[in-house]
Amino acid sequence: MAKKIGVIIDFLTDEYAKKINAAAASHGYETVYFDSSRAAVGNVDECEIIYGHPSQKVIASAKNLKWFACCWAGVDHFCKDEIYCNPECLLTNASGAYGTTIAEHITMTALMLLRRQMEYTEIIRAGGWSVLDGGIRSLHGARITMLGTGDIGTEFARRARAFHPKALIGVSRSGRANPDFDVVRPVDQLDTLLPETDLLVMALPSTPDTVGILSRERLALLPDTAYVINVGRGTAVDQEALCDALNAGHLAGASLDVVVPEPLPADHPLRSAKNLLLTPHVAGNMTLGYTCELNVQIFCDNLDRYVSGQKLTHLVDRKKGY
Amino acid sequence: MAKKIGVIIDFLTDEYAKKINAAAASHGYETVYFDSSRAAVGNVDECEIIYGHPSQKVIASAKNLKWFACCWAGVDHFCKDEIYCNPECLLTNASGAYGTTIAEHITMTALMLLRRQMEYTEIIRAGGWSVLDGGIRSLHGARITMLGTGDIGTEFARRARAFHPKALIGVSRSGRANPDFDVVRPVDQLDTLLPETDLLVMALPSTPDTVGILSRERLALLPDTAYVINVGRGTAVDQEALCDALNAGHLAGASLDVVVPEPLPADHPLRSAKNLLLTPHVAGNMTLGYTCELNVQIFCDNLDRYVSGQKLTHLVDRKKGY
Repeated sequence: MAKKIGVIIDFLTDEYAKKINAAAASHGYETVYFDSSRAAVGNVDECEIIYGHPSQKVIASAKNLKWFACCWAGVDHFCKDEIYCNPECLLTNASGAYGTTIAEHITMTALMLLRRQMEYTEIIRAGGWSVLDGGIRSLHGARITMLGTGDIGTEFARRARAFHPKALIGVSRSGRANPDFDVVRPVDQLDTLLPETDLLVMALPSTPDTVGILSRERLALLPDTAYVINVGRGTAVDQEALCDALNAGHLAGASLDVVVPEPLPADHPLRSAKNLLLTPHVAGNMTLGYTCELNVQIFCDNLDRYVSGQKLTHLVDRKKGY
Repeated sequence: MAKKIGVIIDFLTDEYAKKINAAAASHGYETVYFDSSRAAVGNVDECEIIYGHPSQKVIASAKNLKWFACCWAGVDHFCKDEIYCNPECLLTNASGAYGTTIAEHITMTALMLLRRQMEYTEIIRAGGWSVLDGGIRSLHGARITMLGTGDIGTEFARRARAFHPKALIGVSRSGRANPDFDVVRPVDQLDTLLPETDLLVMALPSTPDTVGILSRERLALLPDTAYVINVGRGTAVDQEALCDALNAGHLAGASLDVVVPEPLPADHPLRSAKNLLLTPHVAGNMTLGYTCELNVQIFCDNLDRYVSGQKLTHLVDRKKGY
């Protein structure tokens, strides 16, 4: 019986299938493609590897699974041991595929907030043509705090550098140095950084440590003139406190691509919060072709490593959650 | 009689006045501040230098003017000889003050177009939460053609580089080399570049050569998937042809910060053109504090040069228009 790789990706093209098939065949694997998780459940017994974005049910039904190569960056739904028949099953994510597109999203929304583009959109929409009182602001000279220094944080820092911020400080669990930041601080120093922050960017995985990390107390530590951007997981932010801060003018603006719940109900208070730029979880999805290319490439490269017994890249520590 | 400098700037602060006064006094000049052009007309006879954004009438009434330090980048309204009592009067602009803010505007609007942010704004506005079919695009891998390689074009190129475009080509009158671009081509090669362009950015002064430079014929040379951004002067674009191209899908989108006329009437066809991001001439105005600082700095530095008989920076060739 040939070893099998199950593939469930909704961005499949002939080109990607060709590439995946070639990589699989070169190592003696057969590929099986499923249009949906529904089609896959109960039909993945023979799969040693699954690549893509299956449901938890698919993974739970894969009796002989040794490696789940998740095509998302955030794998919080796949970290519990009980999902897996085989407790030793490897889990990888594809965080490296999203840095480019999410860094562009962050740059765009940061500039939209600083330049008051949402207000200008309203002026034009109303048939007007006028300059807002009170001026705009700039990435030039801004003090940027990047919460999360992984692929997304690093790719954003590389782009932000070209705009000449005054400070570009990374914050991570370990505080491990990263040359793309002025300095990286461990997360226990976050509270001392917030009062000196013009732009707080959050790109954190959802883990027990990150849920609610931007609490009401921490929001209060930011200057009234600060902006917050979140592209990680909605759970990281106390949304009620964020709403209050925006509406009371204790925060200049915010951009959320991730919220709780998604989709966000039409009558949710966040929808009418002042100076809030909402986007429907599109910062890092598969709508950019380049992201898909990278995603397939990461899987094929990792398959080479898997077969030759090397340590996989993008390996997730299921206990840590990333 | 002391030599006088007339100052007409609406972004005056105590700090800027102090700085200008100190520079003037160090060279034996007195400063005279006017709240408006109306207040200045007829009262600038004694001014050897005028700094700011006066009306043509003010300049025409300045009988002893030797140097007009215009605080704008675009000086097309001040290039005709007949405005000046003294035909040898020097004219400088402040183009170096606007590169930072306009480069940020271009980056923001480029990303908004590529990432279909105007459509996402509408989805959110309607209470929705969905991902658009057809995907988004990226500065990564984009072929960028920058028409105008002065301060604005150069500052944009420096930032765009960090996003890893496939090509970053400058176009200027001379085609003189500029290390921030892959290559700079003379403008007579523009037509061969347009079919290979994903993003055409225009930052040109208004001169006889640039009026209508993006003609109907040239618009037709761009791919249907291309985007156009104009931050120079509205006269550079055949607006009717642009409207037609957008509405017919022969252009993916455009961003205009400058149009003819300004303000743009509420019922103007551009207002309803498909995928057009309009902004009310705010890319490079004085609403960013950093722009004002640079502006005052450029004037003070140039005053040193003027007094010591050195060649001024930002000197405008009134015949060329920039």
